[in-house]
Amino acid sequence: MSNDEQEIRQLVATWMEKSKSGEMDAVLDLMADDVVFLVAGQPPMIGKAAFAAAAKGQPGAARPEFEGRSEIQEVSVHGDLAYMWTKLTVVVTPPGGAAKITRAGHTLSVLKKQAGKWVLARDANLLVRVEC
Amino acid sequence: MSNDEQEIRQLVATWMEKSKSGEMDAVLDLMADDVVFLVAGQPPMIGKAAFAAAAKGQPGAARPEFEGRSEIQEVSVHGDLAYMWTKLTVVVTPPGGAAKITRAGHTLSVLKKQAGKWVLARDANLLVRVEC
Repeated sequence: MSNDEQEIRQLVATWMEKSKSGEMDAVLDLMADDVVFLVAGQPPMIGKAAFAAAAKGQPGAARPEFEGRSEIQEVSVHGDLAYMWTKLTVVVTPPGGAAKITRAGHTLSVLKKQAGKWVLARDANLLVRVEC
Repeated sequence: MSNDEQEIRQLVATWMEKSKSGEMDAVLDLMADDVVFLVAGQPPMIGKAAFAAAAKGQPGAARPEFEGRSEIQEVSVHGDLAYMWTKLTVVVTPPGGAAKITRAGHTLSVLKKQAGKWVLARDANLLVRVEC
């Protein structure tokens, strides 16, 4: 496995870990400034600032618990550009004792190497709610 | 606009045109042998042969009518690899006078240049059914 592929796999692991611990600045470090997130049934979320605003949530509101498991299906590196697709499961536990919500499905991502560091650039999230 | 970007935009136009006219061999020419199609709530469709089998449908069954409109939001070429995201609307009219089904949303695609020709390599389709 190439160093680039190892770094990309580490990016995914760090993303999961920092999302779980709520360290959003560390998650933001893993994406390009012009990142684009595409999901079904919603407008595109364009730019790191939009992600930061969405992740922050309501001021003073308790943070939901987050647990993600990513199974990387393919990483393909071409110079300073790479693509990856994964099988992803995310379990969100809302604050206040509400029932967990599990979403599962695939992602397709484009990553770029900027100043020697891989970052997420474009992401399509195909997860749907599942009953577990 | 670079020649590569023009060729990728032409690929999208040809895909729409040949899907509409039902020329599936021409559509198959636009994808890599190892193409992967990701959609929500279904297993990945891997390989040109799987696409061909799905497109063929039931033997003897009438073919649904297909009308697609793709608005390309970005094409980014990096050597022999490119990515693209689009806003796509597809209207399918089932045979036998059933009501049209409209699906709309975004796509994220990875394309590769193989032997001088761009082909679709990985595709995430985020379309959801809409009422029009």
